[in-house]
Amino acid sequence: MPTNIVRFEAGVNSKWGLLRKGRVHELDIPCTTTAELLSLGVETIHQSVVGGGSGVDIEKLKLLSPVTAPAKVLCQGANYRQHMIDSGMDPDEKTYNMFFTKSTASITAPVGVISKPKFVRLLDYEIELTLVLGKKTNGALKINRENLHEYVAGICIGNDVSARDVQIPQMQFHKGKSYRTFCPLGPVLCLLSKNEMHYLDELQLQLTVNGEVRQQDSTANLVFKPADTLEEYSQIHDFEPGDVLLTGTPSGCALGLPSPTLVKVSGLLPEAKRWELFLKMQLKRPQYLSVGDKIESTIKSSDGVIDLGRQQHVVECAYD
Amino acid sequence: MPTNIVRFEAGVNSKWGLLRKGRVHELDIPCTTTAELLSLGVETIHQSVVGGGSGVDIEKLKLLSPVTAPAKVLCQGANYRQHMIDSGMDPDEKTYNMFFTKSTASITAPVGVISKPKFVRLLDYEIELTLVLGKKTNGALKINRENLHEYVAGICIGNDVSARDVQIPQMQFHKGKSYRTFCPLGPVLCLLSKNEMHYLDELQLQLTVNGEVRQQDSTANLVFKPADTLEEYSQIHDFEPGDVLLTGTPSGCALGLPSPTLVKVSGLLPEAKRWELFLKMQLKRPQYLSVGDKIESTIKSSDGVIDLGRQQHVVECAYD
Repeated sequence: MPTNIVRFEAGVNSKWGLLRKGRVHELDIPCTTTAELLSLGVETIHQSVVGGGSGVDIEKLKLLSPVTAPAKVLCQGANYRQHMIDSGMDPDEKTYNMFFTKSTASITAPVGVISKPKFVRLLDYEIELTLVLGKKTNGALKINRENLHEYVAGICIGNDVSARDVQIPQMQFHKGKSYRTFCPLGPVLCLLSKNEMHYLDELQLQLTVNGEVRQQDSTANLVFKPADTLEEYSQIHDFEPGDVLLTGTPSGCALGLPSPTLVKVSGLLPEAKRWELFLKMQLKRPQYLSVGDKIESTIKSSDGVIDLGRQQHVVECAYD
Repeated sequence: MPTNIVRFEAGVNSKWGLLRKGRVHELDIPCTTTAELLSLGVETIHQSVVGGGSGVDIEKLKLLSPVTAPAKVLCQGANYRQHMIDSGMDPDEKTYNMFFTKSTASITAPVGVISKPKFVRLLDYEIELTLVLGKKTNGALKINRENLHEYVAGICIGNDVSARDVQIPQMQFHKGKSYRTFCPLGPVLCLLSKNEMHYLDELQLQLTVNGEVRQQDSTANLVFKPADTLEEYSQIHDFEPGDVLLTGTPSGCALGLPSPTLVKVSGLLPEAKRWELFLKMQLKRPQYLSVGDKIESTIKSSDGVIDLGRQQHVVECAYD
């Protein structure tokens, strides 16, 4: 069975806990960072459970991101088959892996609020399987299914929250996806052993807004798989324990992409007019997030072995 | 007078030195990172010069980047007036600041090689004034000319080396600009006092390829100024001492942008055809960097007070 870790608020500090059957057992470990936690190893973590008690109901704790700053937040775009088809791309003809980053400052707790900057009108959600890296590296790597466990320590839920009116008209993935609270991670950091790595291809993702299912897919439909993606990312990044990779989102986002014909016709308009039209069309879509909306996300395996818990957020207005 | 710092190789380690009139005076300080160096303060640095000697000719040292990893490499796009005009944009109507990041792993020494990945056919240069940040921050900031010195510790030369055939057809700023050696920094880290900050608007940049001047402009022509840019960046990033901001590049890159009419007409082509056309047109431009090309960059003030030294690189082929 995998090892499920959570981090929670304890006065002015945070503590780590082991999650078993919905109850959190405090860990007596001196770690303040995810990197320090990962360096302990699974055996030590299990031996560090504070003795005897029956633990605390996870619902009673103020949960924190199990990934601590500083951490690189590496991302992939357009990486599920149906999402690519919806976006007018052919997943069987994809020739490159789309990379971008979010800021560390965007990382936030798995339960709480997502703050919509006042100037953002097109706020969107993107549930993503998130890999938590476990090894310091130096230089380009060869990664395959056989050695993937050396680089991936575990997994958690991620939400690649996006301001589409910054990201798309300005062609700015980084800015539009990096505002504070735009990267909820957790609650569960699920540490995987070598023989559990196959679950990376067998996880069910689901995201709801106000109870309505918006995204639902399986990681079986990832176009670029984790090993290939990390191998390519290692051409441009050295990894540190606790860095994360968000592996892309399934179809079902609020963003509605126009037909290829409309894209071509609007390409003949002056740029300002084109983006005015984009904004006007998108503002008609009720799927975009509004203040007060409730977003919930889960990722689990159908055999019940993997369960990354439940993210729960309410959208509020920031920068007032 | 500003304080000019360099870092250089000394056996398996590195050392810091104070540069005066072309000669480097070793510093007796225990710092391994730029953040530690900056924490000393200018007075301590001057008092730490190893006694008595006349220093070493800077040309005799193997110079290293004065910015050490880990460091966030924050960037701005299209931020010089003429470069914007060349790119079909009106600098007086610019409504947003373009942000992206390069990887830490792209940082390289100020003298040496730039490695062209084998698959890259459109390798380009971009000289940029680079701000070295000096303060740990937490949350969005208000930054203006009066308090800018609290956040900016100094400046150096940066080259935002770019693989245009990755960056543009794939719309991937991060990947196309993050390969190893794609971010030479230094040689001089010039520490500025409050009353020297005005130089940020008065610096002359020049980049040559094989002795031919390709880029030449003044930071007076920056569209978004450092204070405004850092204020906006603080919405999405917390800063650490030693993080850098590359403030954009003047016109004169190898990249040749097609006429607005051609952009519109090519927008009617299928995507694959459009990028085939882009590649074909760009490959005709002799300005792109080839293996063996020599690139040199300088940044200085016309009164001679600020001189950030000379970057010198040769292009070589990597991943063979």
